[in-house]
Amino acid sequence: MSRGEAARPAFGKILIFGVGLIGGSFALALKAAADVAEVVGFGRSADSLNEALALGIIDRIGIDPALEVGDADLVLVAAPVGATGDILARIAPGLGPRTIVTDAGSTKSDVVAAARAALGERIGQFVPAHPIAGAENSGAAAARVDLYRGRKVVLTPLAENPVAAVDRVRAAWVACGAEVRELSPQRHDEVFAAVSHLPHLLSFALVHDLALRDERDTFFTYAASGFRDFTRIAASHPEMWRDICLANHEALLVELDRYRAELDDLRVALASGDGERLQQVFAVARSARRAWQQS
Amino acid sequence: MSRGEAARPAFGKILIFGVGLIGGSFALALKAAADVAEVVGFGRSADSLNEALALGIIDRIGIDPALEVGDADLVLVAAPVGATGDILARIAPGLGPRTIVTDAGSTKSDVVAAARAALGERIGQFVPAHPIAGAENSGAAAARVDLYRGRKVVLTPLAENPVAAVDRVRAAWVACGAEVRELSPQRHDEVFAAVSHLPHLLSFALVHDLALRDERDTFFTYAASGFRDFTRIAASHPEMWRDICLANHEALLVELDRYRAELDDLRVALASGDGERLQQVFAVARSARRAWQQS
Repeated sequence: MSRGEAARPAFGKILIFGVGLIGGSFALALKAAADVAEVVGFGRSADSLNEALALGIIDRIGIDPALEVGDADLVLVAAPVGATGDILARIAPGLGPRTIVTDAGSTKSDVVAAARAALGERIGQFVPAHPIAGAENSGAAAARVDLYRGRKVVLTPLAENPVAAVDRVRAAWVACGAEVRELSPQRHDEVFAAVSHLPHLLSFALVHDLALRDERDTFFTYAASGFRDFTRIAASHPEMWRDICLANHEALLVELDRYRAELDDLRVALASGDGERLQQVFAVARSARRAWQQS
Repeated sequence: MSRGEAARPAFGKILIFGVGLIGGSFALALKAAADVAEVVGFGRSADSLNEALALGIIDRIGIDPALEVGDADLVLVAAPVGATGDILARIAPGLGPRTIVTDAGSTKSDVVAAARAALGERIGQFVPAHPIAGAENSGAAAARVDLYRGRKVVLTPLAENPVAAVDRVRAAWVACGAEVRELSPQRHDEVFAAVSHLPHLLSFALVHDLALRDERDTFFTYAASGFRDFTRIAASHPEMWRDICLANHEALLVELDRYRAELDDLRVALASGDGERLQQVFAVARSARRAWQQS
């Protein structure tokens, strides 16, 4: 076996904070690609960690983050965005010089600010990322080796990041089967306020308004497939979406105000019986929606 | 064969105005239930009528509505709501005393008003109905024998309708496999403004706002599954939805204003960082959405 040794994985030790759907699927995909030697899991729930261990998502349950991080190649923080700062503060004291840290948060400006506060002059080791792979289920049991296949992952590199660090994070996501893009943190937050955060807010708002009515049962009885699809995202996690809305409230307020102006305009058309205007708005929307679906 | 004749179908001759998805599926289902002797089709497009004939949806293409309606048992108007009045005016002169007329419109108060104007003292022969079976495809080729199986059909009977007439229309929809409910026309329009018309308006509005931006491609690039579901109904027919919005503008304005107040409330919570309020709204919505899905 002089030359018969298996190819060395690209990553030696990886730490994952949060071994649920997002972190767990990342670990499974890297393992399937033979791209990691050891995965150490951290989390708030012993049950989740034990489940992830039993499912082969992680190789060990970590005890002391500051102790483990010294010789880790990569750290993935896959926790709620509000918890990212605390986790980074816990690993900061032991952070090795070669360790690269990344995250999976749905918002980026706030995460970057928290990372700057926690990591200080080591901020260059933190490469922010957002895998776009929402799912209705959560937890380690929902993790899937193919969750990221064909999905987009947005990196929002910082001026302080060495190119090599960004390349390593990109390589990890490419190994998971993802299509990697780059945006600035601010642009990321503006884009996702429009195409994700606002739709969630609007969907929650519609169902909330119906749910508080005395005759809600009558209303829900006649809701059909259009309602089902429009409100599917209103079944999302309240705490997670509270945190996203608060974290990205600046960009979200801009989008919400644009949208309210759009509704004001439609209200005028409705109240004045302006069918031409309604049809124009609907036709532009339909055409854009169909073009998007086919792209 | 002294007693061997087949059971007589419940309906002899049926006229269908609009032989697309809605009217065509109704004809196919009644034929499959052996509940109709002859289906005569009318429509604006000769191509559609020929296609419906070739597909066995109708038995003949009708020439003169006033002439055919005298001995018809049932007339279904499955045309855009804005065209219902004209069609009823054309059949009114020849309407037989036993003929029952019904429709498939998404709005009811306006259709009833148009029917009163067109039918005058014969309004009792018109039983308004709304099958809740939207679909993304349209046209005769999209018609399916099982479109109405397990779907709801709302009858909105008039004070002038004989019970027997309502029963006949109910029987036809039951033969199609539908679950038949009853609401007043006004209540129908209020309910559907909330659970169908408003969501369509909101979905059109979101996509319209994105479609007009210079950087729309960047936005659409990052839109994912939540956006896909939220905006599926923004690919609906602009003319059909213009007509529905105009026809039901009173109830829709009430719903739109409730919704705008809901957004105003959420805006205050967002701008003031009131996470508790956001979480409360989201949690109520999630709980109601999940209860609905399971019911």
